[in-house]
Amino acid sequence: MHEEIRLKEVVDINCDMGEAFGRWRIGDTRDEHLIPLISSANIATGFHAGDPNLMDETVRLAAEHGIGVGAHPGYNDLQGFGRRKINGTSKEIVNDLIYQVGALREFARRHGVPVQHVKPHGALYMEMAANAELSRIFIQYMHTVAPSTPIFCMAASATHIAAQEVGQPTVREFYADRDYGDNGWIVFTRDAGRPDPKAIARKVLRACTEGKVRTVTGADIDIEFESICFHSDTLGALEIAREIRAALVGAGVRIAPVSQFLNNEIARRPHE
Amino acid sequence: MHEEIRLKEVVDINCDMGEAFGRWRIGDTRDEHLIPLISSANIATGFHAGDPNLMDETVRLAAEHGIGVGAHPGYNDLQGFGRRKINGTSKEIVNDLIYQVGALREFARRHGVPVQHVKPHGALYMEMAANAELSRIFIQYMHTVAPSTPIFCMAASATHIAAQEVGQPTVREFYADRDYGDNGWIVFTRDAGRPDPKAIARKVLRACTEGKVRTVTGADIDIEFESICFHSDTLGALEIAREIRAALVGAGVRIAPVSQFLNNEIARRPHE
Amino acid sequence: MHEEIRLKEVVDINCDMGEAFGRWRIGDTRDEHLIPLISSANIATGFHAGDPNLMDETVRLAAEHGIGVGAHPGYNDLQGFGRRKINGTSKEIVNDLIYQVGALREFARRHGVPVQHVKPHGALYMEMAANAELSRIFIQYMHTVAPSTPIFCMAASATHIAAQEVGQPTVREFYADRDYGDNGWIVFTRDAGRPDPKAIARKVLRACTEGKVRTVTGADIDIEFESICFHSDTLGALEIAREIRAALVGAGVRIAPVSQFLNNEIARRPHE
Amino acid sequence: MHEEIRLKEVVDINCDMGEAFGRWRIGDTRDEHLIPLISSANIATGFHAGDPNLMDETVRLAAEHGIGVGAHPGYNDLQGFGRRKINGTSKEIVNDLIYQVGALREFARRHGVPVQHVKPHGALYMEMAANAELSRIFIQYMHTVAPSTPIFCMAASATHIAAQEVGQPTVREFYADRDYGDNGWIVFTRDAGRPDPKAIARKVLRACTEGKVRTVTGADIDIEFESICFHSDTLGALEIAREIRAALVGAGVRIAPVSQFLNNEIARRPHE
Repeated sequence: MHEEIRLKEVVDINCDMGEAFGRWRIGDTRDEHLIPLISSANIATGFHAGDPNLMDETVRLAAEHGIGVGAHPGYNDLQGFGRRKINGTSKEIVNDLIYQVGALREFARRHGVPVQHVKPHGALYMEMAANAELSRIFIQYMHTVAPSTPIFCMAASATHIAAQEVGQPTVREFYADRDYGDNGWIVFTRDAGRPDPKAIARKVLRACTEGKVRTVTGADIDIEFESICFHSDTLGALEIAREIRAALVGAGVRIAPVSQFLNNEIARRPHE
Repeated sequence: MHEEIRLKEVVDINCDMGEAFGRWRIGDTRDEHLIPLISSANIATGFHAGDPNLMDETVRLAAEHGIGVGAHPGYNDLQGFGRRKINGTSKEIVNDLIYQVGALREFARRHGVPVQHVKPHGALYMEMAANAELSRIFIQYMHTVAPSTPIFCMAASATHIAAQEVGQPTVREFYADRDYGDNGWIVFTRDAGRPDPKAIARKVLRACTEGKVRTVTGADIDIEFESICFHSDTLGALEIAREIRAALVGAGVRIAPVSQFLNNEIARRPHE
Repeated sequence: MHEEIRLKEVVDINCDMGEAFGRWRIGDTRDEHLIPLISSANIATGFHAGDPNLMDETVRLAAEHGIGVGAHPGYNDLQGFGRRKINGTSKEIVNDLIYQVGALREFARRHGVPVQHVKPHGALYMEMAANAELSRIFIQYMHTVAPSTPIFCMAASATHIAAQEVGQPTVREFYADRDYGDNGWIVFTRDAGRPDPKAIARKVLRACTEGKVRTVTGADIDIEFESICFHSDTLGALEIAREIRAALVGAGVRIAPVSQFLNNEIARRPHE
Repeated sequence: MHEEIRLKEVVDINCDMGEAFGRWRIGDTRDEHLIPLISSANIATGFHAGDPNLMDETVRLAAEHGIGVGAHPGYNDLQGFGRRKINGTSKEIVNDLIYQVGALREFARRHGVPVQHVKPHGALYMEMAANAELSRIFIQYMHTVAPSTPIFCMAASATHIAAQEVGQPTVREFYADRDYGDNGWIVFTRDAGRPDPKAIARKVLRACTEGKVRTVTGADIDIEFESICFHSDTLGALEIAREIRAALVGAGVRIAPVSQFLNNEIARRPHE
């Protein structure tokens, strides 16, 4: 049966965490409420959001809940929240990434947990998805320092391709609170509004059971992924998390950090 | 014989490296000329100086020359070069340190070398020397993540005491280009002028052979150390490095990174 | 009658505005709700909070409501919200102030309103209150570029004295949501909790009618002021503003920007 | 006679000044040596270079030498020296400009001199040259706050057109140390090498006497300008300045700040 084959037994839910700064906060959702509902945290590393105190707290919180700790580096753009591309060379942008990943890794080391994954943030995630040179230099670094640590990316991205070239593991994402184009890319936005949590849960469930998503043009496309992403600064993020979780649990899909099931998934991928 | 007993067989020479930023430089000396003359590099980690590109280059350069790579974190004060105290809590200042050490460690990992040591910079070095709470929280972190990595500090500092309390190794420093007070502390300055390289070399040699230094009041005090420090932004740094090196080599003192001899030295320390 | 003589006919209410940054916010109160309730806005100028977009919006909002626009410069410390002293020289700290005041003045110019006043922020306000040299250099600059623009300060501060020395006008403040010491200084805090709005209103009314405030030791001291201050990031700030306003209006005290009445008040001061 | 008609009687020489930061310097040329050789200074305003202390010193220096003081705002990119485009909205980039111009204006006010002109820096200058929306919003602001203050720009730029639309004065520039394309634009570079000062002086003189410049393709194009620009961080800048000056003086061309002759020049422009 088609659905039987497609039905995921297990999936990861990842969310950006620690995206405040100093005394400031964003959105209407607190990290400590979201963390029990997800399985992997992308922790901001100080360039687009996050500061050393918050990184320390967020890693500790994630470690306590046994969820995967990921580094979430961005463009050096606090004011623009990393949603504005900075036109640096690939080499210098990757150096910025290395700096940030290292900073997060040290807090993880302090709290006795590994860095499970790396996921670039915002405009940098999108730039890497489109920019093969940038992705390659980044993957090269990851392959040198942490050859078994997966990069989170879109299945349809240059990042995914660059990782496959050298055998660096990836986690392909499904974006619960973003719209898709026909090319399998999310439509980048600086403001996502307040989406309907139940509609999001239905979209996620369909992706998990049918492997399909409807695009902005009304077409259905195939989508492959190991992790579901939503954003903690999307309005109503807590409700979105609860609805996604309830839908998955109701359908018998187990939720777990990618570190617990990724090797099996990669073995099942057809041609990588 | 007194001098025979005191005569050091081996000593480290450390110097701050990578203290430029972006397109800017400081002082009249280039790192690539100094690195062959020293045995340990304190590499600026981006808060008081240094940027990710420069950190990458400087770690690579140090690794190529086989000298010890150290993290050199400072106050978050680019404009003031980390020479202005920021009145944060001990906990938040240590989080800033963790962030920076981690960033440097990642570049070291990329270039296949360990982080040999950590040495706080400028006003933070002096604040830690005086502030037992700050030193203890910092040492606690170091003891958790890297229990055999030495902290560079003055023998007469709260940092040294805090490290001894938990058994974290230290490297005690002799400051070649700074004046000493009668309490064994260096006199902190924001501008060291252009000192006489030969006079500095004589002062260093006397410290290595007699274990003595003359203070600003004219008194002679005992001084214990495993590493000699001078500053790359002191005017005439290159000449200073050459003169120190020539004096030591002439007296039969071997120069080596502390990682090559520290354990032996610690075993010889009287009461720690 | 004693109260008759002391009863203020008019008073200013000032509040810090525009203290968000980028996409982040602070506290539970929105500026657009507070601005109609106050008469002078201290607008953050980018070093401790505020960014150019927010400065533009906040100046525009203040101009629309006809309230006084003030520059609110702070230490260069976004992460610490300007509540951590930076140990710079007086000259360099004043240059930071000049930079920020100028930036705010340009937005005021764009929106066709004058800069009514300058009020340093947080730890810098307290440092200036205690540091005569710093206050003098700052006042000197103000006297050069804007000799009739008042500085907001405590009556018991070095800033007030420095201003009197050269004849720069001042506005003395009464702090509604801070505790007082017996020396007439507020007790600096990094966290003010959630105070009782009605208690604050009673304290303000007593200060306006009797010229007295009760200190942390239980003593009553005299207090002189032309403006009442509360903080927009104090929890419950909106309710505090409403209660203060209601109490003053109920007692027949008019609320107006200091620019509308300061000259008369200064003429009435006894010996300045 | 052709040359007679074209021969300039007077021209401005502008140069970027105050482009150091904190303790760091750039290039081999000191501002105090260049300032006597130029007639207008573009003073960095803290976002790509410059800090409040340096702005204060540089404005003072320019004022003492009677040369024109200009604001030189850039992208918020210290590490990249403002040579990396930041992909913000036009509105937010202009707010960054306003902030910086205001900061510089305050130092000018302190030293009793007007802001003669505004000239965006580096990648922002080039982006404005190409981006009509960005130029229009910027010109609108300038026209509101300083309708008679000229903007420095290329004759062939969107900035020039936007200024003409509303009647904001411009100063068109000739770039002495940059190459030209056939479209009259300079070829943007992050590294200009060390050009030949005498060749530059010949190129400048030809532009002043014939109104022509040779492009990278070998073509000769017409060039119109009121100011000659070279960069203080071009290697050999001091020698370049001396050669340009000698060539102009030798040809009887007077060198003066644009404020002393701009109105006459604008009157002579054919169709603006």
